[in-house]
Amino acid sequence: MEITTIIDILGTVSFAISGALTAMRKKLDVFGILIIALVTSVGGGTLRDILIGKTPVSWMLNMTFVYVIFGATLVAIIFRSYLKYVRRSLFLFDTIGIALYTIAGVQIATAADLHPVVCVVLGTISACFGGVLRDILCNEIPIIFHKEIYATVCILGGSVYLASSTAGLPQSIAMLVAGCIIIIVRTLAVVKEWSLPSVYKKDYSK
Amino acid sequence: MEITTIIDILGTVSFAISGALTAMRKKLDVFGILIIALVTSVGGGTLRDILIGKTPVSWMLNMTFVYVIFGATLVAIIFRSYLKYVRRSLFLFDTIGIALYTIAGVQIATAADLHPVVCVVLGTISACFGGVLRDILCNEIPIIFHKEIYATVCILGGSVYLASSTAGLPQSIAMLVAGCIIIIVRTLAVVKEWSLPSVYKKDYSK
Amino acid sequence: MEITTIIDILGTVSFAISGALTAMRKKLDVFGILIIALVTSVGGGTLRDILIGKTPVSWMLNMTFVYVIFGATLVAIIFRSYLKYVRRSLFLFDTIGIALYTIAGVQIATAADLHPVVCVVLGTISACFGGVLRDILCNEIPIIFHKEIYATVCILGGSVYLASSTAGLPQSIAMLVAGCIIIIVRTLAVVKEWSLPSVYKKDYSK
Repeated sequence: MEITTIIDILGTVSFAISGALTAMRKKLDVFGILIIALVTSVGGGTLRDILIGKTPVSWMLNMTFVYVIFGATLVAIIFRSYLKYVRRSLFLFDTIGIALYTIAGVQIATAADLHPVVCVVLGTISACFGGVLRDILCNEIPIIFHKEIYATVCILGGSVYLASSTAGLPQSIAMLVAGCIIIIVRTLAVVKEWSLPSVYKKDYSK
Repeated sequence: MEITTIIDILGTVSFAISGALTAMRKKLDVFGILIIALVTSVGGGTLRDILIGKTPVSWMLNMTFVYVIFGATLVAIIFRSYLKYVRRSLFLFDTIGIALYTIAGVQIATAADLHPVVCVVLGTISACFGGVLRDILCNEIPIIFHKEIYATVCILGGSVYLASSTAGLPQSIAMLVAGCIIIIVRTLAVVKEWSLPSVYKKDYSK
Repeated sequence: MEITTIIDILGTVSFAISGALTAMRKKLDVFGILIIALVTSVGGGTLRDILIGKTPVSWMLNMTFVYVIFGATLVAIIFRSYLKYVRRSLFLFDTIGIALYTIAGVQIATAADLHPVVCVVLGTISACFGGVLRDILCNEIPIIFHKEIYATVCILGGSVYLASSTAGLPQSIAMLVAGCIIIIVRTLAVVKEWSLPSVYKKDYSK
């Protein structure tokens, strides 16, 4: 139980900062920055909780999350001119958040006795839909629908975690393996500019 | 119970294909196409389930839906160049989906002991909000808010179904009557280019 | 209990009219106007109910709300040419709605035994997210994220209400004080064109 909470908090910090940075690029006011930070960090988990009927949703029951998001947003606002020089470094932060959220999502879905495929879907929703909601609130087509392959990475990592913990591996090992796979594959994907096979290639030749 | 499931599956297929086609028009990647197909087909029912507190939401409890959506999306991607020549034919598919979803939505709302007006609203939500969510995710004003009259058709069909089943007609007859009304009226509406009476007419004369 | 219902109805009317006016500015059809009016007036409370698991959501259990919204929307459509000359007066209406919704939201969250900070957040969500959903459906960045300070006013008013009712003030006094604060501060904010301190000032000097 406790390890899940720590995972959630770490993911919350990294997502709140990335949300606040996006909101500042959109020139939103302080309230807007705070809401986008909140939605980016708890949005995916909130949607997961609503879909499985786990209410009141997690972040409302643990003030730590709310304070952590307020703090991270404040830090992001104050140090924003420094943060923009370290965006490349922040990428790692974001990737760790994705890995942590995917695993936490799969764990919660498994605890709700759902089908393995649904568990992986819920892990992916936990990791990706905070960003989807952020993009919708900022009036853009969600970036993961046309760029970036991190949803695919979450599906991969979530499946590996589920398979290895079902196969009897200790929790900590299963989490470590799945987490490393997500972090490594996503980093490689961005460095090597991997993208999903296009379904439009034939049209290009016209 | 079983008939409701069959209805849901048929609607799911037709909506998934129409969602995938929309996503491909927007040039989304494979993951984006899959998500838009999923949201278009289960979005309305998911919103209905969340609003009445029926969780975990339906599609998570029946893997058939998830597999059907994956399959329909795959078919839509592979045969997309053929599908675009039969868009007019796909319209019937879509209309049947709308009819089926409306009736299933009214049935589920009735089973939850809600007021008849709310049941019709929930039937309409089941049929229409998958498309609304699809348009929001694709960053457009939902088409049913300014074109198309199919929400009105759902309200009509849902009311007829509710009235006739309350009046004691056998389920199958009530469903057939309401379904035919939705399919016929929507087809007529599109062929004859019916639209809702405009509230802006007076402004045109200026 | 009853006072909460009356509060909710008053807020519902004012929000439905403001929603319908926005939809008419976007030239939506009658169905679109009705949905935007509905979403603007019940959207915040619906999101609050979903987040805390209070389902079926409030407006479905009390047909008064649905009829009131239908009626208010009809009035807004019929008298729209008059309403546009009184937009400044409608502002008061809207502000009263915000005050009423904030207090009702805090009351419902308190009844669900949530942490005071979460109660204030839920009061603010009740008052502001109808407008956020309205803007998303109309394909705009929600206005409260970059203009207007009314979310801040809700946070202030909600906190005052919670503090004074916790401190033992009679409900009616606590509501009156918090309501007046919200109405006065928001009116002042608009008249004096207050906005949140910008976090971008340093960039202006470049």
